[in-house]
Amino acid sequence: MAILNDKFEILPDEFDPTVTNEMAIDRNVHTTSLTVTEPEVNEEFTGDKEAYMASVLARYQKTLVERTKYHLGYPFNLDFDYGALGQLQQFSINNYGDPFIESNYGVHSRPFEVGVLDWFARLWEIERNDYWGYITNGGTEGNLHGILVGREIFTDGVLYASCESHYSVFKAARMYRMVCEKVNTLISGEIDCVDLRQKLLANKDKPAILNVNIGTTVKGAVDDLDFVIKTLHECGFSNDRFYIHCDGALFGLMMPFIKHAPKVTFNKPIGSVSVSGHKFVGCPMPCGVQITRMEHIKVLSNNIEYQASRDATIMGNRNGHAPLFLWYTLSKKGYKGFQKEVQDCQINAHYLKDRLREAGISAMLNEISSTVVFERPKDEEFVRRWQLACEGAIAHVVVMPNVTIEKLNNFLKDLVEHRSVWYADGSQPPCIVTSVGTHNCICPAHK
Amino acid sequence: MAILNDKFEILPDEFDPTVTNEMAIDRNVHTTSLTVTEPEVNEEFTGDKEAYMASVLARYQKTLVERTKYHLGYPFNLDFDYGALGQLQQFSINNYGDPFIESNYGVHSRPFEVGVLDWFARLWEIERNDYWGYITNGGTEGNLHGILVGREIFTDGVLYASCESHYSVFKAARMYRMVCEKVNTLISGEIDCVDLRQKLLANKDKPAILNVNIGTTVKGAVDDLDFVIKTLHECGFSNDRFYIHCDGALFGLMMPFIKHAPKVTFNKPIGSVSVSGHKFVGCPMPCGVQITRMEHIKVLSNNIEYQASRDATIMGNRNGHAPLFLWYTLSKKGYKGFQKEVQDCQINAHYLKDRLREAGISAMLNEISSTVVFERPKDEEFVRRWQLACEGAIAHVVVMPNVTIEKLNNFLKDLVEHRSVWYADGSQPPCIVTSVGTHNCICPAHK
Repeated sequence: MAILNDKFEILPDEFDPTVTNEMAIDRNVHTTSLTVTEPEVNEEFTGDKEAYMASVLARYQKTLVERTKYHLGYPFNLDFDYGALGQLQQFSINNYGDPFIESNYGVHSRPFEVGVLDWFARLWEIERNDYWGYITNGGTEGNLHGILVGREIFTDGVLYASCESHYSVFKAARMYRMVCEKVNTLISGEIDCVDLRQKLLANKDKPAILNVNIGTTVKGAVDDLDFVIKTLHECGFSNDRFYIHCDGALFGLMMPFIKHAPKVTFNKPIGSVSVSGHKFVGCPMPCGVQITRMEHIKVLSNNIEYQASRDATIMGNRNGHAPLFLWYTLSKKGYKGFQKEVQDCQINAHYLKDRLREAGISAMLNEISSTVVFERPKDEEFVRRWQLACEGAIAHVVVMPNVTIEKLNNFLKDLVEHRSVWYADGSQPPCIVTSVGTHNCICPAHK
Repeated sequence: MAILNDKFEILPDEFDPTVTNEMAIDRNVHTTSLTVTEPEVNEEFTGDKEAYMASVLARYQKTLVERTKYHLGYPFNLDFDYGALGQLQQFSINNYGDPFIESNYGVHSRPFEVGVLDWFARLWEIERNDYWGYITNGGTEGNLHGILVGREIFTDGVLYASCESHYSVFKAARMYRMVCEKVNTLISGEIDCVDLRQKLLANKDKPAILNVNIGTTVKGAVDDLDFVIKTLHECGFSNDRFYIHCDGALFGLMMPFIKHAPKVTFNKPIGSVSVSGHKFVGCPMPCGVQITRMEHIKVLSNNIEYQASRDATIMGNRNGHAPLFLWYTLSKKGYKGFQKEVQDCQINAHYLKDRLREAGISAMLNEISSTVVFERPKDEEFVRRWQLACEGAIAHVVVMPNVTIEKLNNFLKDLVEHRSVWYADGSQPPCIVTSVGTHNCICPAHK
């Protein structure tokens, strides 16, 4: 890169925003930050600075293209085209407060938001007049909201969640000062209802607030909602003594399109469902959908005169662009389009799992999931290159609509080549039997 | 509008997303929502549907232009040009977890985020290695974070906040199950330190967590930070027995540029400062900046292996576009540019207040603020047209950089004309002496 101006901090040609990776947790490192510099004296915006900023942004965009190309580990569908919405970026769109009640601030996108909410309400089988919901900043806000609704209904309720629940569930418990029982999981990652039963019986005098995972973060495991409800009933919890929040971050939007999959529906005694918008749908920034029963929301809402609306959301000020992105994709693809994409993801996930096993690599794929769990690659550089999410001895690939067979083949080739180097000295790949079970572990001891 | 396709819901030519205004709070109305319809059978995306969607978006854009033109009541700077960042909308940018620690997800904007945070750290006088912070989804998330940090440091602390604090402060108290003392305010809207003293003394045995307003929502009043600290000390609270969160939503970014204004600085015993990014800076979606002391954040953080990062934020998944918008504007304008804009806002705010008073309309403007409070217009349609925020008998205009003298003149002309109609029958404009004091009320009784 040519030096544009010696007054500006110069970035290396290979500008890589990931080089701070080596830093230790807890060290506040600023080595790669892009310092905001003052414009030149007496000039509001000089040509030099404009050129500098344009060059920073151009290199950044190049980096994003690269990073997007190699991404496999997080459940984000990176394949979207919102060019048609580009003109709307110039507006400060804010769905202040409630989606169903106008605030005085006129630059909003509520008609799109409610259209999106209705679509999800149909998906999860709750009538227009019976639900309340909003478009959130992501799965965490959905969980924070669902668990808060549960706690406001049952102020002395105990929170139950499997130990493989998303970390935001335990964050909520801490924020809300709730007693939380962590429930064991099966090898698949599902909640262990035998352990749940014991813990419910130990707290029989307190109402129960449950987080049910519709696809866990690491293994893509789906908690058995019907069995959870049956366990509650058998332990003496009638429907008016428990609240179930379904965390459907990724899989809440995929499962309805899978034949013979268990069903998330408001026809069952659940209180709320949340799903992420930036995951299966794909969106430039994190967002999500939260749907609950209208009757529940009354415990949470305060009327706020200042905004001439009602405050039953966590965030108050809300991103008005997210509903536009979601409305656009849902309208374009429809239920049928999602069904096709879900099928493709499942086919590709099975392809990946089968190829891994053929290559002698331990791997697991839950029946209806598209999250393939396998042995953690030995080299952190490889993990980072493919942006894999890891936990202990396992890593995973989440097969999203943008993950093609070609991309998977590149990954497989790269992994097999690297493995032959990692284990050339006769050392053994890790045993992951405790994470994936004897069926799925093909380490030397379990082959 | 021509009927594009009789299978689609047809919108009126004058598509106005605000017509649900009439609805009563608590009624779940879907009358104006834009239903998401299925694509045609056997076609993934038909030309008809494409045309329908394009037409909806084009009319929506027209509405946004109109609504933006008339907006006066909320503290959002609607004047920005992020065209240079348009190409980045195609990426799913997520600053998952901590700004200072890479996660394995590579499509992020941390170098920009940290650049922005450093800029604010300089503004509020805290060293790079002494602060921690992140870019939030807006002022509410900042308040939720600051108050949570306070509560985690002082688990039995009592929260003190003036009754004119933003509603999110009281929402936090409820979420976090904190004892909350609402403190009276002066006519200006500032916290009444005499009342604060009494309430502190009544809870002397408990540590204090304080929300200090750097610009209240309705009157733009600035709590006297130095007097609050003096009061704490005089009541026997040493620096290690209180935590102060400064809610600088709008004014936290304006005050540093005003000569002789009181100073928000980490050289004083404060714990955190938050500010909104979509307010004075201007941003397509809500966002904000939260800065706290590094030593405090340790009480809040958990290391999350899944994201290979640290979780000390509220949201976990974080909008990676917001830092780009902020970085771009801060770089373009610099401290000097903001100083100029703040001065212009103050000049225009004084202009508005003076013209209102000349027209016989009660009005108040706090010394260093740009929020002009005045009698609530009699007609809700007028309130809605200018998107004014109202509370009781008062309304306000927040003079932002996009609010020009021309816009104010249009508003004044419209208001004066309407008033001559509203009060043509000899009825009197409202007395607002209890909200603005005898100096500022010029209703018939206080003229």
